[in-house]
Formats: sequence, C-alpha cells, structure tokens
Amino acid sequence: MSDNRPPTFQEIIMRLERYWAERGCIIWQPYSEKVGAGTMNPATVLRVLGPEPWNVAYAEPSFRADDGRYGENPNRMQMHTQYQVILKPDPGNPQELYLGSLDAIGIDRQKHDIRFVEDNWASPALGAWGLGWEVWLDGMEITQFTYFQQAGGMTLEPISVELTYGLERIAMFLQGVREVWQITWDGRRSYGDIYLQQEIEYCKYNFELADVERLKQMYNLYEAEAKSAIAGKLVIPAHDYVLRCSQTFNLLDARGAVGVTERAHYFGRMRDLARLVSDLYAEQRMRMEYPFMNDERGTMNDEQGAERDAGAEVGAIVGEADLVLEIGCEELPVDDVVSGIGQLQVAAPRLLDEARLAHGAVRVTGTPRRLVVYVEKLAGRQTDEELVFRGPPANRAQDADGQWTQAAIGFARSRGVAVESLEMRDADGGRYAFAVQPVAGRSTAEILPDLLVRLVSGIRFEKSMRWASDGIAFSRPIRWFVALLGEQVVPFSYARAHSGRVSRGLRSLNSPDIVITSAASYFDAMAANGIVVDRAQRQRLIRQQIAEAAASVGGAAPDEPALLDEVTDLVEQPAAILGSFEERYLSLPADVLIKVMQKHQRYFPVYQSTRLLPYFITVANGAPRDPAVVRAGNEGVIRARYADAAFFVEHDRRQSLEAFTPKLATLTFQEQLGSMLDKVRRLEQLTPWVAAHLGLSAEETATAVRAASLCKSDLATSMVVEMTSLQGIMGREYALSSGESPAVAQAIFEHYLPRSSGDKRPASLAGLAVGLANRLDSIAGLFAVGLEPSGSADPFGLRRDALGIVQNLAEAGLSFSVRDGIAEAARLLPVTATQQTQDKAIAFIAGRLENWLRDEGSPYDVVQAVLAERGDDPAVARRTVAALAVAAAQPGWAAVLTAYARCKRIVRKLPEQYPLAAEGADPEPATQALLTVYQIVAPSVQAAGDVSALVAALHALVAPINTFFDQVLVMADDEALRRARLGLVQHIAALPDGIADLALLQGF
Amino acid sequence: MSDNRPPTFQEIIMRLERYWAERGCIIWQPYSEKVGAGTMNPATVLRVLGPEPWNVAYAEPSFRADDGRYGENPNRMQMHTQYQVILKPDPGNPQELYLGSLDAIGIDRQKHDIRFVEDNWASPALGAWGLGWEVWLDGMEITQFTYFQQAGGMTLEPISVELTYGLERIAMFLQGVREVWQITWDGRRSYGDIYLQQEIEYCKYNFELADVERLKQMYNLYEAEAKSAIAGKLVIPAHDYVLRCSQTFNLLDARGAVGVTERAHYFGRMRDLARLVSDLYAEQRMRMEYPFMNDERGTMNDEQGAERDAGAEVGAIVGEADLVLEIGCEELPVDDVVSGIGQLQVAAPRLLDEARLAHGAVRVTGTPRRLVVYVEKLAGRQTDEELVFRGPPANRAQDADGQWTQAAIGFARSRGVAVESLEMRDADGGRYAFAVQPVAGRSTAEILPDLLVRLVSGIRFEKSMRWASDGIAFSRPIRWFVALLGEQVVPFSYARAHSGRVSRGLRSLNSPDIVITSAASYFDAMAANGIVVDRAQRQRLIRQQIAEAAASVGGAAPDEPALLDEVTDLVEQPAAILGSFEERYLSLPADVLIKVMQKHQRYFPVYQSTRLLPYFITVANGAPRDPAVVRAGNEGVIRARYADAAFFVEHDRRQSLEAFTPKLATLTFQEQLGSMLDKVRRLEQLTPWVAAHLGLSAEETATAVRAASLCKSDLATSMVVEMTSLQGIMGREYALSSGESPAVAQAIFEHYLPRSSGDKRPASLAGLAVGLANRLDSIAGLFAVGLEPSGSADPFGLRRDALGIVQNLAEAGLSFSVRDGIAEAARLLPVTATQQTQDKAIAFIAGRLENWLRDEGSPYDVVQAVLAERGDDPAVARRTVAALAVAAAQPGWAAVLTAYARCKRIVRKLPEQYPLAAEGADPEPATQALLTVYQIVAPSVQAAGDVSALVAALHALVAPINTFFDQVLVMADDEALRRARLGLVQHIAALPDGIADLALLQGF
Repeated sequence: MSDNRPPTFQEIIMRLERYWAERGCIIWQPYSEKVGAGTMNPATVLRVLGPEPWNVAYAEPSFRADDGRYGENPNRMQMHTQYQVILKPDPGNPQELYLGSLDAIGIDRQKHDIRFVEDNWASPALGAWGLGWEVWLDGMEITQFTYFQQAGGMTLEPISVELTYGLERIAMFLQGVREVWQITWDGRRSYGDIYLQQEIEYCKYNFELADVERLKQMYNLYEAEAKSAIAGKLVIPAHDYVLRCSQTFNLLDARGAVGVTERAHYFGRMRDLARLVSDLYAEQRMRMEYPFMNDERGTMNDEQGAERDAGAEVGAIVGEADLVLEIGCEELPVDDVVSGIGQLQVAAPRLLDEARLAHGAVRVTGTPRRLVVYVEKLAGRQTDEELVFRGPPANRAQDADGQWTQAAIGFARSRGVAVESLEMRDADGGRYAFAVQPVAGRSTAEILPDLLVRLVSGIRFEKSMRWASDGIAFSRPIRWFVALLGEQVVPFSYARAHSGRVSRGLRSLNSPDIVITSAASYFDAMAANGIVVDRAQRQRLIRQQIAEAAASVGGAAPDEPALLDEVTDLVEQPAAILGSFEERYLSLPADVLIKVMQKHQRYFPVYQSTRLLPYFITVANGAPRDPAVVRAGNEGVIRARYADAAFFVEHDRRQSLEAFTPKLATLTFQEQLGSMLDKVRRLEQLTPWVAAHLGLSAEETATAVRAASLCKSDLATSMVVEMTSLQGIMGREYALSSGESPAVAQAIFEHYLPRSSGDKRPASLAGLAVGLANRLDSIAGLFAVGLEPSGSADPFGLRRDALGIVQNLAEAGLSFSVRDGIAEAARLLPVTATQQTQDKAIAFIAGRLENWLRDEGSPYDVVQAVLAERGDDPAVARRTVAALAVAAAQPGWAAVLTAYARCKRIVRKLPEQYPLAAEGADPEPATQALLTVYQIVAPSVQAAGDVSALVAALHALVAPINTFFDQVLVMADDEALRRARLGLVQHIAALPDGIADLALLQGF
Repeated sequence: MSDNRPPTFQEIIMRLERYWAERGCIIWQPYSEKVGAGTMNPATVLRVLGPEPWNVAYAEPSFRADDGRYGENPNRMQMHTQYQVILKPDPGNPQELYLGSLDAIGIDRQKHDIRFVEDNWASPALGAWGLGWEVWLDGMEITQFTYFQQAGGMTLEPISVELTYGLERIAMFLQGVREVWQITWDGRRSYGDIYLQQEIEYCKYNFELADVERLKQMYNLYEAEAKSAIAGKLVIPAHDYVLRCSQTFNLLDARGAVGVTERAHYFGRMRDLARLVSDLYAEQRMRMEYPFMNDERGTMNDEQGAERDAGAEVGAIVGEADLVLEIGCEELPVDDVVSGIGQLQVAAPRLLDEARLAHGAVRVTGTPRRLVVYVEKLAGRQTDEELVFRGPPANRAQDADGQWTQAAIGFARSRGVAVESLEMRDADGGRYAFAVQPVAGRSTAEILPDLLVRLVSGIRFEKSMRWASDGIAFSRPIRWFVALLGEQVVPFSYARAHSGRVSRGLRSLNSPDIVITSAASYFDAMAANGIVVDRAQRQRLIRQQIAEAAASVGGAAPDEPALLDEVTDLVEQPAAILGSFEERYLSLPADVLIKVMQKHQRYFPVYQSTRLLPYFITVANGAPRDPAVVRAGNEGVIRARYADAAFFVEHDRRQSLEAFTPKLATLTFQEQLGSMLDKVRRLEQLTPWVAAHLGLSAEETATAVRAASLCKSDLATSMVVEMTSLQGIMGREYALSSGESPAVAQAIFEHYLPRSSGDKRPASLAGLAVGLANRLDSIAGLFAVGLEPSGSADPFGLRRDALGIVQNLAEAGLSFSVRDGIAEAARLLPVTATQQTQDKAIAFIAGRLENWLRDEGSPYDVVQAVLAERGDDPAVARRTVAALAVAAAQPGWAAVLTAYARCKRIVRKLPEQYPLAAEGADPEPATQALLTVYQIVAPSVQAAGDVSALVAALHALVAPINTFFDQVLVMADDEALRRARLGLVQHIAALPDGIADLALLQGF
C-alpha cells in the first residue's frame, strides 16, 4: 500500500503474515475449534513443548463468553481476534522483532508512548505459566508478550517467546476510530457490518439461552472422549475435546452456573486432561526422534544480536579508576528494579571488600531497563597480604646451635620459602617456626571480570525466568552489559550477553546505541540521552510533574506511595500527561473509578479536596513528540473501561440488591455445604447468636441480621462478577440505591473487613458481627468436610478468615469464645462437624492468634504463656499478653519468676491435688508466713482475674516463697506435713491458672 | 518472491489472499468449528442468501472423516485445505478472474491441460444446489467452480459464484511432488512434518475410536441447542450447532453407524435446521434493511466485460448472404452440447421458414464453448405475401348497377384499400367481396435480431441455471455472440451479452479474440485458431487419435460410445495423450480399474484382446506445448486413485468376506426391519424356500444359501463403502479370495442383477434365487412398514426391485407365484405384514410386470387380458401374452372374439352359476351342436391350460356359437330351458379363465 490511508483490518493481518513469514515463521491458520486464545491452538500449546525449534504466526478469533457486552462496549467483545506469534527458541532480540512488526503495520513509534508493563501469565487449565509484559500503546494494551516457562506441567527447554497482538485494538488505533465496530475491514465494510450482529447473538446465547443441563452433559461427553483419545494415544483428537471442555466450561461460567468448588473441580479436570495430552505429545515427539531438530536455522535472523560487543578490548589499568556496571535488560518488573538495586547495594561493596579492592563510594540505582552500579575510585590493584603458616616448634626447628633442622628445611620447602626466611613467633602458648608468604595484590582489571559475573549472578528475584538455553534465570532477559573501568571495557560474558561500552537509549527513540567513553561519563551520557537513571530523582520528577498537572485543573493528586513507586519503575524518562474523561462517569461509584485508574491503568486520580475530578494523570515513558496524541489514546482507553463499568452498574441497578439474593443458589459455596444462598440462610441464623454474645443492642442486631441476608448478594451482580475485588463495595452501593439503611449498607461492606493485612477494621458492631458469623461458618464448615488448609494450599482463604476473626475481636476488645462460636456454627451446618474437627478448627484459629500477637511484637514466650490459658478469647488474650509483657519487662520480674518456678516445679508432676491445709497444720513459721501472704493476695487474683492482680500477688509472695524453700523441707517424711506443704505450694502454683501458664515464660 | 522456486504452501495462500483482496474481496478467516467444506462457513452459506453483494475469500481446513486413509494415500486425507472465494453477484467474467488467480500463484496455463468439466453440486443437508464444473489441471481436479442457484431451500437472487480451490493438489502440482506429505510448507518444513501425525491420529479416532453412543448423544444435544437458538432468533449460534450436528453425523458415518433410513432421517433433521437458520438469516437481513445494498461497487472489476462489442454496426443487406450465429458460452456440459445442437437443428429452419426467409442448407454444430448455426444463402428479404379479407356478400357489396354500396365502402376503408380494388370471389358456397392487401417482405437484416433472440431463448436444457439478475436461464452463462449476416453484424443483446464479430479462442491460448470478417470465413477462422468446431469431425479425430495411441503400445481401445461422446464435448481441439500406470495395480480387480478410468477420469482403457494393459488415454483440450508434462500430471492422478483403491482392497483382504458379515449389524436396513445383518438372516431362510419353488437342484440350493449368507457382506468393506457401485463386484472378488466356491462368488455378484435397465441377468439359478429372495424381502418389508413408493419418491429403489423380480423370472421362463413369495417373505419379517399390505405389494409388482410387458412391445389389451388371469406368475404371463398376441394377430381372430363376446356378454352379470345340462335337456339342434363341440374342445383347454389350446377351441366354437345365438332364444320363458342354455353359455364364456380375460381385449 503506497498511499497514506491507514491499513484496513485485513491489511493488518496480511502485513503481519508477510512480516513474520519473511522472518522465518510458518504461517498458520486459526484453529477449527472455538478457543479462548491463540495459545490454545496446538501450534502453540503443544509445539512449545520439547526441544525442537518452532516459529509460527497466525490469526486466531478468540472466544471469551464472559467478555460479551451485547456489542454495547466500544472494545470489549466475546470474540476478538488475536495475532499470535511463537518464537522458539528465543531469537535474542524478540522485543526488537516485535517493535519492527509495529513499524510494518504502520505504527509510528516515535509519536506514541510504548511501554512494556509487567504482566505474567498462568493458565491453571493448561498447567502453564510464563513471565512477560503487556505492551501498552498510549495506555492501551495491544499485545501480550510472554516468555513461556512451563506448559502442560512441563518445564520448557528451550523457552518460547509468545506474542499475542490484540488486532482490533491495533486497528482502532491505526484507523483512529473510537469503537471497534467502526474499524474498516477492507476499505468498504466495517467490523460492525460484519461482526456486530453475530456479537449480539452470541451474547444472548452465552448469557441467556445456553442450556446449563445440556452443557453439563456435553462437558461430560467431551471429557469421556478426550480420555478415550488419550488412552488411544491420539494427541490432536484428544486436544480437540479438551478445547471443547474448555469452551463448554466458559459457557457454563457465563451462565453463572459454576460455583467456587465446582470451578476448582472443573479446572482440576481440565488440567489433568491437558497434562495428559502434553505428556502424550512430548512422548510422541521423542519417539519420533524430534524430526525438527535437524533444522539448521534454529533461531530467527538476529538483526540486533548480542554479539556486537564481543571481542572488546582488554587492558590493564594502573592506579585507581571509577567503575560502572550497567546490566541492560528487557523491561524489569517494578518490584524487581527495587529488589535488584537493594541487592546490589549490599553485594557490590561486600564483593569488593572480599576481593581486597579499595574503593570510594558505591552508588547503585536503576530503571526498568538497566541496573547500575557505580564505584568511585576503585583501586588499581588488590591490597597486598601475607599468608602465614605455622611450622614445627622452635626447639625442633633449630638445633641447639641455631642450625635449621631437617624438619625446618622440609617445612620451608613445602611452603616454597627459603628456610632462612622462617620466623619464630609465639602462638598458642608456645613458640613456633612460621613461614610467611607475601601475596602481592592482583590488578583490578584482572579480577573484575569474574567478580562482576559473580555480582550479576548473585542477584535473585521472587519470580525469575529463563530465556536462553543456558539454565540462567533472571527477572527478565539480560541483553547487554556496559562495564567500564575508567575508559576500559571490563570484558566478560554472562547469559549470552557480552560486556562492552555500548548502552541502549530510550525505547521511544528506538533504543539508539549510546557509546560510553569512560565510566565517569556514564551518568552524563545517560542524561544527554534523556534517561533519568537515578531512581530517586525520577521519583521526585514524577511527583512534581503530577502535582503540576493536577494543579493545572485546580486539583491535587494525593500521595499514592505504592502507585508512585510502581510508576517510577515503569519509565526511564517520565512525562506526566493529564487526560480527562466524561463527567457523566463521575456518577459511578468512586471506588470503581479509582480502582480502574490505579489498578488497570496506573493513572493518578485527581481530587478537589475529597471530590474526584474527571481527570487522570498518566506518566509516559519518554517525552512524546505530541503529547496530545498520547493523551487522546489514553482517554480512549479509560473511556472504554468506564463504559464497561457503567454498563454493568446500570445493568445491575435495574434490580434491587435483594433481588440478586435468589441467584446465589446457582453459586456453589462448596458441594457438601451447599450454595452461597444456603450459606446466607445460615448466616441469618448465626448472626443474632453472635450479636447476642457480643452484646449488640437490639437496633444493631436488627442491622446485622438484615446485612447478613444481603451480604453476599452482590456476588451475583455483573459488576462484581467482572471485578471480584469490588465485592462488598458494590454491595454497599447497591444496598443504598435499593433503599436499605446506611447502617445495613455499611455492615455489608464491613463484613469483609479486613480484606488484607493493613486493611481497615469494621467500624460498626453490625459489620463485625456479620463478618464473624461468616468466617465462623466458613471455618467450621470447611473443616467439617475435610477441606482445612494444608501446606501452602489454602484455596478458600481460611487463614485470612481466621486472622480476621482474631484481629477484629482483639482490636475491638470484644470478648468472645471462639469455641462456642464454632460450636454454634457447626450446629447450623448441613453436615456433621465432629468434636474433633471442631477442635481442629479452634486450634487453627488459635494458631493465627499466636502468629498475630507475635507479629504485633509481643514476646514469643508471653504469647505462649497467655494462649495456653486464654487462647479461646482473642480480645482477652491480647490484653493479657500486653499486660504480662509489661510486667515481665519490669526489673523485679526475674525474682518473681524464679520464686514462682520453685513452687511450680515441685508440684508440676504431682498426680494428686492436695487441699490448702488450715493454719497451724505446719508449725514451721516460714510455712505459716507463706500461707498468710497467700491468703491475703489470692482472693484479689481470683476476683480480678487479670495480670496486674496476679503480678502484684506474685511480687508479694517472692520473699515468703524463698524463705519457705530455704527453711522448710517440703518433702517431709511426715505425710501430713508433706501434704500440707505440697497443698500450699500447689495453690500458689495455681494462682496464674486461667490467666497464663508462667511455666512457658523464658527464665522459668 | 522474485526467484524461480515454486511457491511454498503458505506462499500460495498469501498470494491468493493478495490477488482476491486486490479484486475487492473481503479476506476472511477459517471458521471456528470443524466444517466439511468452506461452503459451510457462514461467510458462504449465509451470505449468499438475499440481495446484498458480497465478495469474500478465505482458506478453510475442511474435515471429511470418510476420506481418511491413515496418511497412506498420496493425496486423500480426512483434512484438506480449501481456498474459498465467493463472488456475488456474478462479475461477468468469473472464469477469467479465476484463471488470472492461477497465473498469480505461478501456474503457466499454456503448458497444461486446463478443462472445465461439468460438475454440479447439491447439498441436501444445506438445501442447496448449483451448477458448474470441476476445473481439471492435467486431469487433476484442482477447483470446484459453481454458480449457486439455491441455498437454504431459497432460490438465490443474485447468483453467487463459488470457487473452491484444492490447495494441497495445487501445491503438489506447483512443487512437482508426488504426495501431499512432501509439499513444502514454508521452504523448510513439509506438509507431512506438520500434518501427517495428526492425519493418522484423526483417522484412528474417526474410524476406530469415536464412541458411537456418545456421538449420538452429542448429536441430540447439538440439535436441541440449535433449535433453542433458532427459537431465540440467533442465527450464528444456531448455525454453529448445525455444523456440529453435521460433523458428528460425519463421524457416525465414518464409524459405519448410519444405515440407509437413519441416514435419510439425519439428513432430514439437518436440512430442517439448516433451512430454519437460512430463513432466520434472510429475515434478519431484511429487517436490517439490507445494509450492504448501499455498496456502490456491486460487482468485481470486470476486466474483460461483455460490453466490448456493444454498438456494433447495423446495416442493410441486399440479396442473399450466409448467416453465422455463434452462441459463446462458458463450458457447456456434454449432454447440453448435444441437446443444444439438436434443438437448433429443428428450431433454426423452422423459425426461418415461419419468417418467410428463403435459405439454403442449415448447418448446426458446436463445442463445449460454442453452439453454431450456419445458414447458407439466406434471402435478403422475406418473400412477399397477400393478406385477404372477406367482406360483404357480392349482392350487398354492389347494387344492381354495379355501384359500390356503403357497406363495401366501409369495409374497404376498414381494411385500408381502395373500394375499387375489392375483388369478388367464391367462398363457402357463396360469392363475396374480398379486400386483398399485398404485404412486401421486410429485409432480413431488420428481422434477424429478434429472430436470433427467439432462437437462442427457445433453447431449453434439462438443468439450466441463472447467472445474471435478468431471470434468463441457460445451460451455462452465455458470454458472447458472434452474429454475422454476410460481413455485417446482426446486432442484438440477450442475457447481458451483445452480438458482434469477435469470437474467443482456445482456453489453452488464453481465449484470444478471434475477429470474424464475414459469415463465410467463420469455419476457416475457427480452424485457423485450432478449434474443431464440427462435432462429428472432432469425434472422428478423437477416435483416430485414440486408436493410434493404443496401437503405439500394441494395444487397442475398444469402442466406448458413451465415453467417446462425452469426451467429444469436453474439448475443442482434441489431443489424445497416452499415459501409463504401475503394473502392480493390474492386480486390482479390472472392474475397479476401469470404473476409475472411465467414470472419474474420462480415460480410455487399453486392452490387448481381453487383457487390460497398464495404460490409459486421455484427451487434452488443446495440443499442449509439452505433452510429457500433461501426461505426467495425469499419471499422478491415476496413481493416487489406484493407490486409494489398492489401500482399500488390501485393507479389506486382511479379513475373509465372512468376517465382514457381523459388521452388517451396524448398518441399518430400516429401523423397524432391523439391520442389514437381520436382513441377511432372513434371506438365509427365504432362499431355500425360493430355491425349492424354482426347482433348484440340491447343489444349486446349497450355493444359493451360502451366497445369501454372504451377499451383503461387501457392504461393510472399505472399497464398497468408498464406491458403492462396486457392491456385488467386490463381493465376488472377496468371496473368491476368501476361498468361497466360484459358484457362490458368482451368485453373490448376480443377486444384484440387473442393476439397471439394459444390464445383464443372472446366469445362475443360485444368483437368481438369492436376488429374488432379497427383493421379496425388501418389498414385503418396506410395504409392511408403510414405506411403499409414492409419486416420484422411491428412496429404497423398490420399483427397480419389482422390475428385477419380474424380468428375471420372465426372461428365465421360471414359473413362480409372486403371491406365495410375498407371503413367505412376510412370514419372516420382524413386523406384521397384513394381507392388505401384501396385496398392495403384489399389485405393485404386477404393475411393474404390466409396464415391462408393454415396454417389450406387447399390445396393451393383450397384456391387460393376460395379467387379469396370470399376473401372479411373470414367466407364465409373458409366455401367455406372447401367444395371445400372436393369436390375436391372426386373420380369423375378430370372428372368434365376436363369437366369444356373444357368450360372455350375456352371462357376465349373472349372479348364479348354472350347471352344464345333459345332452337332450334342450331339444334345439343348435344347442345340441354347440354342446357337442364344447364337450369336444373343453377338456384339451383345461388340460393344456395354454393359449394355443384355447384359441383352437374358440375357433372350433365360432360357427356353433353363431348358429346357436341366431336360432335359439337363450332367455327362454321355460326356466329349465333357460337354465340349460345359460349354463352352456357360461361354460363357454369360462373357457379362457385362468389364461386370459378376453373381455379386456380390443374388439370385444
């Protein structure tokens, strides 16, 4: 196409075909089954397995029932068209190849903000995962870029690079249309002409018409056929049925017919099948002896390979010089930039020190594409050192004449020194002959290559990936190193990259080569190329730009430290851009608006005091040639997202929140425990009981019960189905718009609190009560059916539930018996919860309480001591722990504990409980004294039942106890005496019972 | 691609995409469901409906389970890749556009034999049909080219042109590889690398593993969902399920799980669904007000339009001149060339004569691309004529003075003549005034345009098609006319084509323009361009070329008149080419080899006496530049076909024929009548009974019974599943190779005889007996379950079965009671056959017998007369008819019949049967004489029971009868007398009983 018109939809596909064919890809066809993504095509999901090279490209209409919007959303559809490319093995420059394809379809990269934003991918159903990015074009995700690490449950070797283009979005972008339906397909017909009617029909079918019972039957038939094909070792026929299972599952899901447990169950079934198919395929290729292995050209034509800096100069530096190391990467995830910097800050000085290299300040910083270590004044050589070896004792090294003995001569020879140089020194209380070897430091230039490799290879990430077939893992692929000592390259290779003096510039400028003449010029060179290498500086810059942008519309962007941190490591040259969205979307719940901005788009919201303004601020990577273009692109994206949210909210609001409750019957909570509706019915009974035990007022109780009835209803609303994280939030919204009282609405929201560590607690007792009931029901129920968490597996989030119980009660200071609560919850279950399972549940909650108290900073032993007695009531336990910790930190405590321990130890193992003998039963004065003091303090302990009374009592008892034990033989021969004395000691030892087990304290 | 390497598989697709995109097609994607053909993609099957233009092109992997060969056939696979193009409406030059696409993918058309061979298409399941061709490239079908006439049960307007390329075949051809697996996909990987394993797996699944019960359940679920989607007016979701029904049906079929009736039943269900979906789509587009209608560019760029000869010169010819009319068509089907020539031979002279155009000889001939009428010496004007009108009687036209009356004046004025010119003439016995108008003939040039349009439009074909939106139908599209009267064009237009002087040359030369200067030069111009216009000449040429080709390898090609006729009209310039095939294929049954050659490839087999040689002769259209290239292509085709047959035969021979018998249990004969195996079990019982009644020897009976057991077993063999027409033939083959006796093998073959009218009869009694049993079972059974033929519908071929019974028995002269046979067959059925249904079956067979006898030339009345008495026994009936026909043709027969009629008529209605009175009971001599003669002749009639005895008797009775009736009053008053006379007449009238009902004869 020589004219300037943007390419049509079909032209885009044809250009991609041509582009990738010319780069050695097989051009493939969409699959003959409905798939959710191009990944499911056997050309990807199977061919990525095993050692054979494979490069392929194809379009793939992809069906995702859940994404259907009846054609009412500008770019969300149940069917969209992916363009899928697989490069196996990694050609070394996949990002550049990909960016070249954008050129080929007419995207002028210099005009736009293109970013690689961390996005990892996992498909439980395929037993597959990979690390990579979403590629953003002016805020719009246009491509998924993934390094496959595992598929079909198998670790991949070599790694495949997967590119998945979203063709409709790219076409909208190129053609400058606002909605997908306006895309021109071929210059005459629009995308809407061709697909809109079909889209609406599929939505109706998927959401309204598909027959659940028949779909379930189909699923079972497909599964049976898949198994039979697997048994017959037929890979592709089996895979076809797995795909049909998957599509049928998606339809069931769109019909709202899949509950939590059922979902897990279906996933498990699909995963099992997918793994069997993968195994079969891998085995088949092995049996066929990997016919593609003899393909000479394993990799793509590597236009911009990593070899270019090979053979760099090697030289010796004399005297001190600055060192710079730049680890050049494909875009690192935000967290990994921070983690990488942190690790290098520790490791770089440590390694230098270990290597006896004197140095000045070490400065470590980084951007998404580079981690940088700068060492000032690195010595030209290691400091010298001596190695000293002890030889024979002096009197045997020289004879009486002072002549060297044979022993000394032999020793000297073995150490390679002249016997004359042996020195006599004192050691270990004797005198010995020593050989002293002086070791001259090696030159820094000589040492650095190994040292830098050790530095780089020592970095670890939470999630790391492999890319080349060398077993090396890193956060993202390393593509180059700059390593200069002074003006000289420090030559080394690692992970198929070679060190040199050439860095790469901004993506927006097509990553131009930046030649670094010397270490000292590094930061200037970077700055000259627009890259803000210094992370702190970058962050300041962003904060300032954001503030200015917000101020320009009379608003402010409140501190969002997490978001700011994230954005800081998404860009190398920040350029904040203010965009706006239609005011009408402000009628959407603010939570929805903000969540979309922050979570999906990394935008900063703009407020006027607490009022949200119809603006957002995005931070582009590299100052765009025309910010208006980038702004318009981002505005289009947020518009689509808000349109989506508005669609849902509007749709949901057609009914009252209560009207959604019956639909909970189709959401399975757990097979044996019934639907979510069954759960709600239990909560309606359990909540008043909880309320009574927490001492709620009649009004609060009424609020709680109403909230219990409605607390899960939003799970059936479209908005929550779409964004699960809005559960509770939408419940509150919809409750208010349905005319429920603000208290009920609030309680619905609060019953989920805290949603994560650091989250708010419920402010209302009603919310707390419903939340408690909900969690007791979950724990009692799931333990009863044997689904307690095991190992790291906690599919139902019971640890969080238990912690929620503990934390809410403790922080609210409300006394509550977990044991009673579990028992009551168990009573309402449709299954039998034995005492044993209840006990396990209680112990599980107590375990959380223990962790939580310790995480609060309470001493380990104090927590143990208190929980032994008061673990059933978190609020009380917490108060007790606090008080006991204070007491135990007081000066006199050791004496108290020692005295108490004398009592406790002697009676601990006694099988019998002796009565407190009357005064005079033991004539010993010390006994008398002890008894007297005991009788004075014991009632207050028993009455108050708290730590301060106990501690006071114990303090009072220290002296009498010590005297008693010093002067009286407890185990008297006389039995009556013995019983009287033991009885007294037993009573004293029992004083902390019900408060804490002091025997568990340190120092006992 | 600028280099000379042939295009890769993917390059072919990309070139086709580019080619068709540049010609205004939307580029589409393969469908997301498994389809049997690109036609099933909604982009074809739905978009061809309704008035909107639509041009589209796409690749489509097409799945046909039955075609699977486990990867063992060079080009037959269960999956192949179609490239599908739809041009709607017909652009006017679709053949040229198509041929241009062959250029685009690198096929040098001048090197090869490209032919358009009639191939019509109908999909009962889609309610669709169209007319068109297979496009042959050196004998290999590479494309289906169809003008859709109907789809979804709807008549299409406008017509769509469908091109379906077979990509693998084209790739094999271009790349010069012998099997599909060797095709290079992208220059490195082969088609086999990518698809062979999958092909084998699918074959295993389709033929061996797919679970019939589960497939049936799936089918029902799909159907239910399709219905529900249709009820919800969801076109595409419904269509998807129709496709799944179709795919599931294909799998069931491949598993051999679909019987005859079930098949019809499934087809009916699918057709119903497909029609509903089509209706829904058509209605939807109407409701949407046909959004594509406002597409300005309705048709493709018409590179070689039909307009070029418009505005041809008009001139007046004086004097006689020759006329040539060439109707230029896209390739006409063979039968239509003959039919067109035949019709023009009648119509052309008739129209000229009606138009009063004197002319010399009319010569009509034609080729596949042109029908030609040549008229010698056509007069320049019509002959003059007079129109004569009768006016008033002479005596009222002139008064007594001879003056014209007012009546005469008025009449003359009304006829536009001067009153003076009226003439008095005699007419109808009176004398009248007549007006005589002389009519001068118009010039031929003036008349011819209309006349030629009438000539062309008057041609009718058995199957005709529409192409442009003018309602005109013809065998194939008319694209040009040459119409010259002398040197002048006869200007007219018809069916969007315009007359002129430009004809088109051979396809192999890219149809160059041939300018015809005058009618007289037409044949020379054609000859100069290599076109053998004269059909007879072409046929002679072919016969001669074939004979020479066969002789070149020492063989001969026996006369195959039908094939020769066909080939004559497949070419315009015959060029016979001898090819060979591997000798090893000669081990295949000759029937198989010949059927493939003749039926599939239109090749002539070569024999040495009766021995088939490993050669074939094909007749190319246009002398190829390099015959070796064309030969090699054709050899590749026959190789693949024979490989296919060999695959089947080898596969089948792994088991004995008997081993296939149990598999008949999966072939349903008819739901209520059970499987084919059930039928065989019945035949095993019915055959001995039939044998006994036909008087077979013990040995023959044993042969028949064994043959009955095996007669259907070949239906379960792969070869017969593949080519049903080989049933019986393969049964014989496999019986012999399984060690059955030659007699049994022959009987298996013969039980199907005759397979069509004109076919052989069974030579053995065993074969005849099994065939009879088989047909009796079918007729008795299917009538019993109410499936007798109705109207033109005879899905089970019962008419042919009945005719087979009649013909075999009659021609073998074997007496057999059809009534008894039906009763016995009925007795063995699993259902009750009432006497009523048996009677219907018997009457049905008798009806066939009647038709057959009449078709043999027997007089209608004789057949009627005989069948009334002997219709139950075909052989006897036939003999009787023959004898009676002879007798009735004798001179004295009229007297005999008259005399007999006197007897028969008088007693016909009598309710009572009187005894033959003793001699003397009636004293009348005439009565006595008649009685005496009767008593002499009657015993011989009764004894012989044949026509000659009867005729002799009747002859003897003529005189006595006539005398009796002349002299005696039969209805005498005396009751005794009356009874005696009536009794005698009754007995005489009853003489033909059991032989013929003479009352049904003409002249009675």
